[in-house]
Amino acid sequence: MRTRAAVALEPGKPLEIMEVNLDGPKKGEVLVEIKATGLCHTDEFTRSGDDPEGIFPCVLGHEGAGVVLEVGEGVTTLKPGDHVIPLYTPECGKCHACRSGKTNLCTAIRGTQGQGLMPDGTTRFSMLDGTPIYHYMGCSTFANHTVVPEIALAKVRDDAPFDKICYIGCGVTTGIGAVINTAGVEQGATAAVFGLGGIGLNVIQGLEMAGASKIIGVDLNDDKAEMARKFGMTDFVNPSKLDGQTVTEAIIELTKTDEDAFGGVDYSFDATGNVKVMRDALECSHRGWGVSVIIGVAPAGAEISTRPFQLVTGRVWKGTAFGGAKGRTDVPKFVDWYMDGKIEIDPMITHKLSLDEINHGFHLMHEGKSIRAVVEF
Amino acid sequence: MRTRAAVALEPGKPLEIMEVNLDGPKKGEVLVEIKATGLCHTDEFTRSGDDPEGIFPCVLGHEGAGVVLEVGEGVTTLKPGDHVIPLYTPECGKCHACRSGKTNLCTAIRGTQGQGLMPDGTTRFSMLDGTPIYHYMGCSTFANHTVVPEIALAKVRDDAPFDKICYIGCGVTTGIGAVINTAGVEQGATAAVFGLGGIGLNVIQGLEMAGASKIIGVDLNDDKAEMARKFGMTDFVNPSKLDGQTVTEAIIELTKTDEDAFGGVDYSFDATGNVKVMRDALECSHRGWGVSVIIGVAPAGAEISTRPFQLVTGRVWKGTAFGGAKGRTDVPKFVDWYMDGKIEIDPMITHKLSLDEINHGFHLMHEGKSIRAVVEF
Repeated sequence: MRTRAAVALEPGKPLEIMEVNLDGPKKGEVLVEIKATGLCHTDEFTRSGDDPEGIFPCVLGHEGAGVVLEVGEGVTTLKPGDHVIPLYTPECGKCHACRSGKTNLCTAIRGTQGQGLMPDGTTRFSMLDGTPIYHYMGCSTFANHTVVPEIALAKVRDDAPFDKICYIGCGVTTGIGAVINTAGVEQGATAAVFGLGGIGLNVIQGLEMAGASKIIGVDLNDDKAEMARKFGMTDFVNPSKLDGQTVTEAIIELTKTDEDAFGGVDYSFDATGNVKVMRDALECSHRGWGVSVIIGVAPAGAEISTRPFQLVTGRVWKGTAFGGAKGRTDVPKFVDWYMDGKIEIDPMITHKLSLDEINHGFHLMHEGKSIRAVVEF
Repeated sequence: MRTRAAVALEPGKPLEIMEVNLDGPKKGEVLVEIKATGLCHTDEFTRSGDDPEGIFPCVLGHEGAGVVLEVGEGVTTLKPGDHVIPLYTPECGKCHACRSGKTNLCTAIRGTQGQGLMPDGTTRFSMLDGTPIYHYMGCSTFANHTVVPEIALAKVRDDAPFDKICYIGCGVTTGIGAVINTAGVEQGATAAVFGLGGIGLNVIQGLEMAGASKIIGVDLNDDKAEMARKFGMTDFVNPSKLDGQTVTEAIIELTKTDEDAFGGVDYSFDATGNVKVMRDALECSHRGWGVSVIIGVAPAGAEISTRPFQLVTGRVWKGTAFGGAKGRTDVPKFVDWYMDGKIEIDPMITHKLSLDEINHGFHLMHEGKSIRAVVEF
């Protein structure tokens, strides 16, 4: 069949909206009509050419929602008409990682996915002249139709709006999951969130759900504070306006009490991808038990560092991918939470675009004007 | 009173065995007759002048055992004749840290202890001419008698031999505690231990207790392997003899199975204090769930680093001080374990010395000839 897609032909170039060929689903695969897709910084990281593992030409996009149109041989858990969210972190349930129960990082199709291929080592997308077009994160949601492995699709309820739940395919789950799955924040805890973009706001939302007593937001842009407060932020720190104090000192100051002369937050989260910020996040966490979670994706080759004393005195440094969520199991729950009003998504979808306007979506991202721009088909 | 002590007069100089003045215990303090003390690398770190926080003159030593001779005003939990182990990590039970239940890093007397002082801001030791001699880690066990705060003394059973249980005051508890308290190793887990000195052997002993299925020891000295095997090491890696392979690759190779194409250990421990080794320890731990624990004390200013991807893909970087043990509560249990034959100490006490021979003990340490040298009074 043919479908319309926004194709990244070369690193650093705008996406090109074009007709492409899409082969039907092979064994274990599913053809999905994408109804909506969010634009995430990770797409932009690859589009820009900064991602050393980017493979071109490709169809980017990994935050989508849609409807199953056709299933390939052997697919048993999905049928045409099912509403689905593609998962860049699949859940096969059978690999060593899935069976461990200790991680969401399913390894079943990791090798081919990283090379922009379906599990059989080929692509379903191609140019009209036959040139293969690579898949991206196993999802390629910047296309009206895409093919995704069965194990990389979460079946969700039929009454949830695509233009909102697509965000659960990455940002919402990553942010909230970092709090509840990776950090395991408990009621009454204190926390700091570095970076108040789409991920950071969801971290704040997760902290509010978990019952955190103090939620300190950190961003260089004062304009981000208003929305963050709506999601539960209690204190705001702009590191560029601290008058000589470091951000770590400012956070320690905010958390000192008569009982606790040390200060520091129980949990901290980096949602910036900046390795210096990751260090600040670790070092503002509490001596003895602070847990710091890295969420952001760092530039190629960048390294985190700290004095080992920070860890020896009880701080824990962790990271999270897709919020530690097991996609097929957890994503339907997140959709239920949204439909039940337990989590909010609507205020974060700040822009709606058509596929033709997708490059404008990246401009909005760069200008810091959007939290999430969503393309509707 | 007067007592004999090995005094560190200046950084980098041999200790001087001399008569010193020792004032009696003030409020909340206890006079202890030290019966035996181990020599630890941390004492040597300070003696050598490498420790930027070293304060001289001082009485070093923090791994002792002895008998209470006299208690100061208000001391209620100890009486003359009690057998005790001094704790460089006290347990007051009342400070914010103790009450948190999340850490062993009691803060009650941290400020003065770090300055070589008793809680009231003075020293009990002095030269015969009256010059104050500083305390060390709140213990100063390189003296026949010392004064220690009540909250920094664990009462232990009377039938345990001082020349063995003194080692529980640091090395034994640090190594075994890192496994059971900090890492929480479960039965069947795989592990790597970097550095097979006094701490590393106790980590191995802890792993054996916890039921680890594979215990990989790493050391540049082949001679260390024999003793490590006796404590439970199943595999040995000498990084200097790997023929082009990195130590991380070698450990991954050793842990790959038909089911697990990734490899890597479930838990790793650095007992070297070398920041490059700390990185290896993290990076040889398993994608998805590996936990790496820093035990060693790094040189001043040294920093650990890695790519954040290592954490985002599920590894956890932690540290431990005194094995996460709450001293007054846990140290008596360790003594019971020794007396009940659950843990071994005797083979690790390789040398016995008199106080006059203490500098020889540091020579043995440098030459790698001792696991633990113990001074008996």
